[in-house]
Amino acid sequence: MRRVAVIGVGFTKVGEHWNSSLRDLYAQAVLRAVSDADLELRDIQAMFIGNMSSGYLQAQEHLGSLLATHLGIQGIAAVKIEAACGSGGAAFHQAVLAVASGYYDFVIAGGIEKMTDVRTEYLTSALIMADDQEFVASTGVTFPGLNALIYRLYMEKYNVRQEDIAQFPVHEHFYAQFVEHAQYRYPITLEQVLESTIVADPIRLLECSPISDGAAAVVLCPLDIAMKRRKEGIVEVIGSALSTDAISLNEREDPTTFIATVKAAKRAYRMAKIEPRDVDVVEVHDAYSILGIINLEDLGFAEKGKGVRLVKEGEIARDGRIPTNLSGGLKARGHPVGATGIYQVAEIVKQLRGDFGKNQVDDAEIGLAQSIGGVGGTVIVNILKRIR
Amino acid sequence: MRRVAVIGVGFTKVGEHWNSSLRDLYAQAVLRAVSDADLELRDIQAMFIGNMSSGYLQAQEHLGSLLATHLGIQGIAAVKIEAACGSGGAAFHQAVLAVASGYYDFVIAGGIEKMTDVRTEYLTSALIMADDQEFVASTGVTFPGLNALIYRLYMEKYNVRQEDIAQFPVHEHFYAQFVEHAQYRYPITLEQVLESTIVADPIRLLECSPISDGAAAVVLCPLDIAMKRRKEGIVEVIGSALSTDAISLNEREDPTTFIATVKAAKRAYRMAKIEPRDVDVVEVHDAYSILGIINLEDLGFAEKGKGVRLVKEGEIARDGRIPTNLSGGLKARGHPVGATGIYQVAEIVKQLRGDFGKNQVDDAEIGLAQSIGGVGGTVIVNILKRIR
Repeated sequence: MRRVAVIGVGFTKVGEHWNSSLRDLYAQAVLRAVSDADLELRDIQAMFIGNMSSGYLQAQEHLGSLLATHLGIQGIAAVKIEAACGSGGAAFHQAVLAVASGYYDFVIAGGIEKMTDVRTEYLTSALIMADDQEFVASTGVTFPGLNALIYRLYMEKYNVRQEDIAQFPVHEHFYAQFVEHAQYRYPITLEQVLESTIVADPIRLLECSPISDGAAAVVLCPLDIAMKRRKEGIVEVIGSALSTDAISLNEREDPTTFIATVKAAKRAYRMAKIEPRDVDVVEVHDAYSILGIINLEDLGFAEKGKGVRLVKEGEIARDGRIPTNLSGGLKARGHPVGATGIYQVAEIVKQLRGDFGKNQVDDAEIGLAQSIGGVGGTVIVNILKRIR
Repeated sequence: MRRVAVIGVGFTKVGEHWNSSLRDLYAQAVLRAVSDADLELRDIQAMFIGNMSSGYLQAQEHLGSLLATHLGIQGIAAVKIEAACGSGGAAFHQAVLAVASGYYDFVIAGGIEKMTDVRTEYLTSALIMADDQEFVASTGVTFPGLNALIYRLYMEKYNVRQEDIAQFPVHEHFYAQFVEHAQYRYPITLEQVLESTIVADPIRLLECSPISDGAAAVVLCPLDIAMKRRKEGIVEVIGSALSTDAISLNEREDPTTFIATVKAAKRAYRMAKIEPRDVDVVEVHDAYSILGIINLEDLGFAEKGKGVRLVKEGEIARDGRIPTNLSGGLKARGHPVGATGIYQVAEIVKQLRGDFGKNQVDDAEIGLAQSIGGVGGTVIVNILKRIR
């Protein structure tokens, strides 16, 4: 098994890109990542593209060939990887396998989703395809609706108040102020969250990640090649795991914990030979505020039912014990679904390089990114470590 | 790089499966493959699912979690791989990378497409998503239309007659008579082909692959583990390559040759350390009769413009020099797009095991499967060899 490094990252601002097509947006991210890696496009041998809904939203499949063509590097191996909202994280995992296998040296893991310039009802339909169409989506339930069930059950089971859970997006918006690529760069207050429109009771609007356009890319290569080529900015992938779970909540014993997170994290920690306490900086998949809390617990940073304490006691702050979502997270950086998992990895890489600006965690050495597909039907956990 | 073996294959009959849902059909294939591999479902660690259009046709994404759940093996790593009509071949390539990497031991490469129970105009829309939506599909051109352009250009450039090209489906229907899982198990004559309805001039109906439902799966593992577990039926993946090309014909210098086939074949042959003449049995992606001919040439079995001779002189027959599409090919076995690439690999494996019934090639040792996405925007070439 070859050791794998990340040597380049690139992404667009997350937001409404009405003047860029899917391919243009994607190309911007790749060009930045390749340049950051100090490579030329012609060095790239394979590309794994995380995307969920291009078929339904853009009537465009075959992104591998399309995007390789647009970049002028047709000839390379390129495929689309789909695992619902976790497509980006899954594409990164595939890229790791591709380099580890010895088949490819310079590989791009990319993610792209273009969501803001389609009709809202199309988006609702597109997103619920992450759950079981025949037995769940067909009831008319929406994605916020499913997460509202988790939210309410969690509050009841652990006797936790919404005021505490709703601190999570407040935390994220605070940090997003200092993140150039974030979709919403302004602070919000707890009162604003609790008074915002109800989307699916009890979930309030300001607890929901937005609809976003965005593209991100990272360049991977064997660690030994990275060491020869670069003096600094080398980050190793020390753990990478993807786990599935029953696709629908009704098939789970306990919907307030994501077993796929627990399993993927366990594998990734074991592979990395670390414990949760060794992690210096984290990005979790907070599509809704409640998921931010649940993820912190399932990743081993807090006991079940105690996740809100990490927020309340400042432990997920920049100078806390387990700095989390300093990018603004899905809520404030934004959530272009198939790209989000790659944004997370890119942000962790920048943290480990000491290149995260005002939100830089002091001397961050090990970082973790967690990406979710559906309501936890797929979870990908990637652990990265600064080598030099 | 770990050596990779295929130790189990399974598939459903190709045809109209109106009484089976997508998940049921897929599960049938996987259960057969796992049983054929002499494994239990719980041994499986990862699954790569080739599928093109489940989002558009079934309003269902997130097949990794959905199908793992339906099989009762949620917890494994599972993702959907999309490369248009080449999705199955691409999923197989991913599975090879996964085993070669050392991350996973027992892996399924599966393919599923459910196409016959949707409205025809949806299919036309779904399939053209394999080409550039903004600059090609938006003109109203269909997939048969694009292939008709290739067909006419080929005839003109190489001075080849339609009567010769149209022999390819005649050849395939002859062999499909003896293939239990084939969609159309009856012979057709050249006259019938040439007198069948025009679909897109000059392409006749009997030169087109049909709309099909089907699922196929193969089980892969490291060769050394296979050698310990099995006395026979071990086939090694000695070459596996995926190449892209410009997604649209108008961006190609010569639309009568698929550069992605040439490139993928070159890599796969080099990896396998063989020449085209060493190949004993072949499955090519003949979505239209003309592609059967072009593929034989691009894979190195005939000079450009001379592919029809292989058909005319009986060289692609069971007892010929380069037996091709003895499964009936896409035309007669059928073409459930995302599954087709896996059917091809499974059929080659059965040939190498000496288990292909009346169409068995004597003492076949090395086989090749070629899978195409779009009009050659992606091509996957896999080369397999009987070990024992």
